[in-house]
Formats: sequence, structure tokens, C-alpha cells
Amino acid sequence: MASPVPIGILTVSDRASQGVYEDKSGPAIAEYLARALVSPWQPLRRLVADERTAITGTLIDLADNLACPLILVTGGTGPSPRDVTPEATEDVCDRIFPGFGEQMRAVSLREVPTAILSRQMAGTRGKSLIVLLPGRPSSIRTCLDAVFPAIPYCIDLLGGPRLEANQAVIKVFRPPA
Amino acid sequence: MASPVPIGILTVSDRASQGVYEDKSGPAIAEYLARALVSPWQPLRRLVADERTAITGTLIDLADNLACPLILVTGGTGPSPRDVTPEATEDVCDRIFPGFGEQMRAVSLREVPTAILSRQMAGTRGKSLIVLLPGRPSSIRTCLDAVFPAIPYCIDLLGGPRLEANQAVIKVFRPPA
Amino acid sequence: MASPVPIGILTVSDRASQGVYEDKSGPAIAEYLARALVSPWQPLRRLVADERTAITGTLIDLADNLACPLILVTGGTGPSPRDVTPEATEDVCDRIFPGFGEQMRAVSLREVPTAILSRQMAGTRGKSLIVLLPGRPSSIRTCLDAVFPAIPYCIDLLGGPRLEANQAVIKVFRPPA
Repeated sequence: MASPVPIGILTVSDRASQGVYEDKSGPAIAEYLARALVSPWQPLRRLVADERTAITGTLIDLADNLACPLILVTGGTGPSPRDVTPEATEDVCDRIFPGFGEQMRAVSLREVPTAILSRQMAGTRGKSLIVLLPGRPSSIRTCLDAVFPAIPYCIDLLGGPRLEANQAVIKVFRPPA
Repeated sequence: MASPVPIGILTVSDRASQGVYEDKSGPAIAEYLARALVSPWQPLRRLVADERTAITGTLIDLADNLACPLILVTGGTGPSPRDVTPEATEDVCDRIFPGFGEQMRAVSLREVPTAILSRQMAGTRGKSLIVLLPGRPSSIRTCLDAVFPAIPYCIDLLGGPRLEANQAVIKVFRPPA
Repeated sequence: MASPVPIGILTVSDRASQGVYEDKSGPAIAEYLARALVSPWQPLRRLVADERTAITGTLIDLADNLACPLILVTGGTGPSPRDVTPEATEDVCDRIFPGFGEQMRAVSLREVPTAILSRQMAGTRGKSLIVLLPGRPSSIRTCLDAVFPAIPYCIDLLGGPRLEANQAVIKVFRPPA
């Protein structure tokens, strides 16, 4: 039997990392994956402050050392001076996929006009796909519903492990060969 | 009582700057703001030719010396060789917000298929939000209707003054704290 | 009578360039143009492997030496490690027009959720407009239907030859002067 696929879940938040409040965003991502995936996987959860080098270091560790084919990140994509997650992600990625950010903003815009302020994005570092999600749990679900259908096929193309989803929960799409 | 918030309005146009024709785009922006805002503000109007250094110099002056939390720019975002406003804006911004350009093109596309040729965008230089609008007055209004609802909250997040809008004219949105 | 306008059609594919299978994408582009254009034109067809320098060399030749006002490219925009067409295109372009990629992904998304994985884009090198289309013939048509209406006007603005389309096939748009 295949060993569980490691999936990185990184929360970026000054306040949660200081214990000022509880991180609800990382758990929301883990719950989403638990519902969506039927193939074996294990979460590798991380929590760091809004510091560019802390974020890059954690992403590099999850990608290069822990071989996560998927790293989902929450927090730090807005316009506040402390929001540096996109800069950190660009630092470590070799390729950017603009369609993720476009589509996450498009679906979020149906809910709030301030969605245009989000710098959500996705890129790859080697064989790892890194996706920046919003901070609020309800917005995380909206965005994952929009982009998750394409993620398993993306990981296939990157040469990673095959992720199988519960199609009753989320309709993952792989084009016919 | 608070002093009026300075808002930069920059028209970029070879012909208008030479007096060959009247600038109607800068006034269209000023009229829009006059209708939309209820808190005190004052326009700082500028008019320059399609020259990269003229544009960057003016943006830097409006942002750094005159402390405009918002700078609205019209002209120079198309494919013509003289259109250099996006390049100049990238020169001076520390961050780009792709959602503005995406949304302005999306709403303009409902009117003309050539909207995909526009390189409209937005970014920040320190605490100043710079937004590149189209050149034609009617398109300016279409684009401001699409993105203005998010602008006051963006300025809040950048640490700037609170702009209050006439909600009967434009529904500005601030998420609940 | 005007000499025919040269239009570059570049297929990027390891397998087609090795003769492992027949290139159907380049011909699909040529057929589209044959239906769409009524002014005289001639296809300059090229076929290269997924090698960054082979792509850049061919684009430079079509743009600088052969003076193509339009170069349509198919293949190599996905997430696979061998997909390097966007990188090669960025190498040779002086300007990027984000609206093309946004719109091609938006229309493709109505058909498949994996459209967000595409790094389709367009840019200019001097007076040449380069557009990256998808690999599959049916997707090529979907994307050309979405962006071709803006292409002749873009070439006008770049100072190139006037392309006339069969408006019964594709509604090309030029704004009133």
C-alpha cells in the first residue's frame, strides 16, 4: 500500500503565531482535504509570522526536504504592509500560474468587491505546487471549490503522486489521454 | 475638522499636454470623485506627455512629497509604441495588485472586445495606491464603478485617511472587523 | 496590389517535431486564418521541440527577419517540466498584454476546470504580436474566437498592415476614430 502523500498546510499570521488568537484557517484547509480526498494523505501543518524569510524557509522545507506535491498557504495576501506572502512565494517558485489567482479572485468577487485587493496566486517549486488561499475559513472553501478540481491533474503533470478525490464532494477533472 | 485628503489625478497624453486638444479625461475623474466622496478631499491635477520619466517623476511627487493616498491615472495603457504608463508605474510601485487590472478588463470586455489590449493595473508606492484607468471618459466611469468599491478599504489597510463615500452613488465596501 | 501579410504559425512539440505524431495544431491555426481573413496573407509555418532556445530563435526570426505582424504559437504552455513556451516568449517580448491570457483562460474555463493550469499569454516584440494558444485544435478555435476580434486593431496600433476579416465568420472590432 502506498505511503500517505504529505500535503503542506501553512498558516501565515502574526497574531496566530504569537498565540494571540487561535488559528482557524489551517484547520479549515485540513478539514477540506479530509472531506475531498479518498487516497491516503497526511497533513504537515506549519504556523509562522508574517516574515518573508520565515515563509520562504518553511516553503523550501516543505517542498525540498519533505517532498510535498501540494502546499496550501493561508494568510498574508492583502495590501497591509505586513502582508508579504506573495513576495515570499515568488522568491521560492520557479513558475507562476496566473489562472489560479484570476479564478480565485473571480469567485471571491461574487461575494465581496474587496476581492480585487487579494494577491492570491499559485506557482511551482520543482514538483511542488504552492497555492495561496485567503485568510478567512469561509473564503478558503470558496477558493478551494474553484481551483481544487484542477490540482490533482496538475500534480500528475509535475510527476507527482496520483491524488484521488471523492467526486461526490469535489469534481476533480483529468482530461482524457 | 480634518484637512482635505489630497487625491492625485494624472492625465498622460502627448496631444493634451501640447494643447492640441482639451483634456477631458482628468476632469471626468474629478467629476466622478466629486459625486462619489462625501469626506473632504482636494484634487491635485497633473498633465504630462507620454514620456516614461515625466510619468515616474509626477507619480513620485504625488506619492512621496504630496502624500496622496490615491492617485488616479488616465491614458497610455494601450499597445501603441508611445503608451508607456504601465512601464512607468511598475518603475515606481513596490507592489502590484493584479485584481484591479483583471476586473477593469472584465467589465470593459462587456462593451468592447479590444479591452484585452489594455494594460490597466494598480499598485502601491508606500502608502499611495496608484490606479491606471482607460483614456475615454465613458470607459473611465465603467472602470471606476468596478473598482472604486474596494479603494477606501485598501487605503485603510495601507494606513491612510478614511474616505467616506455617498453610498447612494457608489457602494463602498468595508468587511466587518 | 499589396503583398500578402506574413503570419507566423509556430507549433512547439517534442513529439510532433520528432515525427512521432502528426502536427494537427499548426494546420488548425492556418485553417482558422483562412476562414477568418479576407485580405491577402501567407502562413510561415514552423515546428520546433520544447526547447527554450529553439523557440526564442524561431520567434526572433519570424519577428525581426520575416517581419510577421502576427505570430500564433501552439503548445508548451502547461505545467509539465518540458513546457517552456511562456518562458521563451517572455525572453523575446518587450511588452506583455495580460488581457489575452485572462480572456483565453476565462473562455476555456467554461469547458474544462484545468484551464487554470494554462500559462497562455500574449506580448509584443517590436511590431510583432505574439499569441500563445493551447495545444488541442478544438481549444485553439475557442481561444481564437475569444481574442481574434481585437488582433487587427492591435496590429494597427503597432503600425502594422491592415488585416481585414470576414465579419460573417469573426466580428473584428476597431473603435470609431
